[in-house]
Amino acid sequence: MATVPLIEYEDATPDVRAIYDDIRATRKTDFINNFWKALAVNPAQLKRTWEGAKAVMAPGAIDALTKEYIYIAVSVANGCSYCIHSHTAAARAKGMTEAQYGELLAVIGMAHSTNGLVTMMQVPVDDAFKVQ
Amino acid sequence: MATVPLIEYEDATPDVRAIYDDIRATRKTDFINNFWKALAVNPAQLKRTWEGAKAVMAPGAIDALTKEYIYIAVSVANGCSYCIHSHTAAARAKGMTEAQYGELLAVIGMAHSTNGLVTMMQVPVDDAFKVQ
Amino acid sequence: MATVPLIEYEDATPDVRAIYDDIRATRKTDFINNFWKALAVNPAQLKRTWEGAKAVMAPGAIDALTKEYIYIAVSVANGCSYCIHSHTAAARAKGMTEAQYGELLAVIGMAHSTNGLVTMMQVPVDDAFKVQ
Amino acid sequence: MATVPLIEYEDATPDVRAIYDDIRATRKTDFINNFWKALAVNPAQLKRTWEGAKAVMAPGAIDALTKEYIYIAVSVANGCSYCIHSHTAAARAKGMTEAQYGELLAVIGMAHSTNGLVTMMQVPVDDAFKVQ
Amino acid sequence: MATVPLIEYEDATPDVRAIYDDIRATRKTDFINNFWKALAVNPAQLKRTWEGAKAVMAPGAIDALTKEYIYIAVSVANGCSYCIHSHTAAARAKGMTEAQYGELLAVIGMAHSTNGLVTMMQVPVDDAFKVQ
Amino acid sequence: MATVPLIEYEDATPDVRAIYDDIRATRKTDFINNFWKALAVNPAQLKRTWEGAKAVMAPGAIDALTKEYIYIAVSVANGCSYCIHSHTAAARAKGMTEAQYGELLAVIGMAHSTNGLVTMMQVPVDDAFKVQ
Repeated sequence: MATVPLIEYEDATPDVRAIYDDIRATRKTDFINNFWKALAVNPAQLKRTWEGAKAVMAPGAIDALTKEYIYIAVSVANGCSYCIHSHTAAARAKGMTEAQYGELLAVIGMAHSTNGLVTMMQVPVDDAFKVQ
Repeated sequence: MATVPLIEYEDATPDVRAIYDDIRATRKTDFINNFWKALAVNPAQLKRTWEGAKAVMAPGAIDALTKEYIYIAVSVANGCSYCIHSHTAAARAKGMTEAQYGELLAVIGMAHSTNGLVTMMQVPVDDAFKVQ
Repeated sequence: MATVPLIEYEDATPDVRAIYDDIRATRKTDFINNFWKALAVNPAQLKRTWEGAKAVMAPGAIDALTKEYIYIAVSVANGCSYCIHSHTAAARAKGMTEAQYGELLAVIGMAHSTNGLVTMMQVPVDDAFKVQ
Repeated sequence: MATVPLIEYEDATPDVRAIYDDIRATRKTDFINNFWKALAVNPAQLKRTWEGAKAVMAPGAIDALTKEYIYIAVSVANGCSYCIHSHTAAARAKGMTEAQYGELLAVIGMAHSTNGLVTMMQVPVDDAFKVQ
Repeated sequence: MATVPLIEYEDATPDVRAIYDDIRATRKTDFINNFWKALAVNPAQLKRTWEGAKAVMAPGAIDALTKEYIYIAVSVANGCSYCIHSHTAAARAKGMTEAQYGELLAVIGMAHSTNGLVTMMQVPVDDAFKVQ
Repeated sequence: MATVPLIEYEDATPDVRAIYDDIRATRKTDFINNFWKALAVNPAQLKRTWEGAKAVMAPGAIDALTKEYIYIAVSVANGCSYCIHSHTAAARAKGMTEAQYGELLAVIGMAHSTNGLVTMMQVPVDDAFKVQ
């Protein structure tokens, strides 16, 4: 139950269609997922977000699969169900094995636990961790 | 300003000292960071947490540096300042370059943005992302 | 799937009915939304919350539509799906245009992004931003 | 204690200086706040973020002060201390009165409360709030 | 570094003084903590919040110390440093032992961990947990 | 729609079955809830989590029902719907009355509100709340 209509390709304005075309060409698939169809409610925001995502998620000093792990980690902590589903699917499409999924799960579970423990005890930052 | 006292090695009970010794041996350093000194308020929890962390953060199907990225990502989303400092320092100690830091930053920034956009629009999960 | 029963007008105790009556009179509609029907599990809390909401959401130094934008912004960051739906509907009922929705979306997306960036880098507060 | 160095104008590369120059020209002040000096760790991200912020925060269908209210609301819910300080200062610079601050505070407090109440009771979305 | 001035008793308006007087009388101490001095920026909100807190935190079907545990738990998950400090102090003043603190810590750490694990795996609610 | 398959007893490996057997014996019921069936994707994590939960949630210096209140409080603030459902059911099974539920609700609502108010005003910690 989105709070905005999902805009299909055939109903889109030319500027939205241009982004959809670039998504399809970049990803080599006709599939446009619901996030972009919803974001088309604001074409300038759609363009900014797509261009940002295309630049940021491309492999560079960090590989593309690792970037999906990071995305999943943020999405879990923020409780974004859609984002967890889409980036877990993306990670699997990029080769994440079940052993890797299991370790990702364990690290995320551990991080949540120690985040809570540290915050409750209000542990002060060690000098050794400070950047000069 | 922790809400608990930080327990130094010399003031610790034998069960706490045993964990401190294992932290030192495992990490090959005498340095015990404040998190463990605070957690010593509950020795059973200290033991559980250290043993969990030792098992979970060891390299496996996911390498040790990537696990630090994931830890940072969760800690940022949860707003845990201590955790961000300690795991950024750990990532650098494990070889994170400034180029990698910069890309980690960009992915985390992007993930927060799309988490917010998706949540505001309440985008429904695409069938393609569902596990059978 | 609420974790409490939803209490309809006809099944409500007199003190709950009095609140329902005031909601109806204030909003000039017979419609009571599910939040209040659930909150009736604790009549004193229902009364406190309704009276607070009535006072706080009334137009004053900030107009009623702007207050809905603020409510949506908080609800998105807290991941409260019900609250996002109800306050987006309320904003539309108070005249929010699609152009305004699109800009609200963009600001919320931007704020989430820079919140994440700032938190990851632990940026210190500029002196210029401090209140004397 | 940032986890990155803050890059001053005189130490910046030409691409970073170009952004700093645009910030100064757009805002009609020589002051560059710490967020941008930290973000210069990744010049491409600095450019993307500044250009996004410039476009998104400009007055449009929603006025500039209201956009600051929204920014503050998100930043409070995400617990971003720096962001709260900087956008509260920005709101005051754009004319926010103390009466408006007081009402903003009240709405944000109310929204947090009802977000928690709704989430605890897992209130189902009313059909009336759903977009057709 | 509050974003509002802290209002002392001698500088307060009569309506704010009346609340301060009631806080002192209820708590049987002259001490007014900073939260109330800050909240005095909006006297109506100060009154609403104090009266709500006085009613809600009083012992009833749940005792006063347990209510502090619950308050700490929420404050940790929301990352509110001030709230963690003030309610940990309140719990100790109401008799919380170090053994109880240690168990509270363990439960909060465990809850954060399983919250993260459940959210990452998007576990569906068992029918057995649903209210008829 | 979990992002992992739920593993039933008959399909489980021996190490997973051993945990399921211990859950059943400890809880004196054949029912295994979905969390454990999902977590079986990583048997070592399943074992660590179950053993941690068994130790932490047992009555000690804090009784078992109070521990459920704390768990619910964390889960609400983290927005974990599954966790709210399962621990609300657990609290009821351990004797939580509707009056207690209503007070738990009121405390959690109050804590969320003051967390937001404090964070927005960035209230500094009183010296009286600091541990020496």
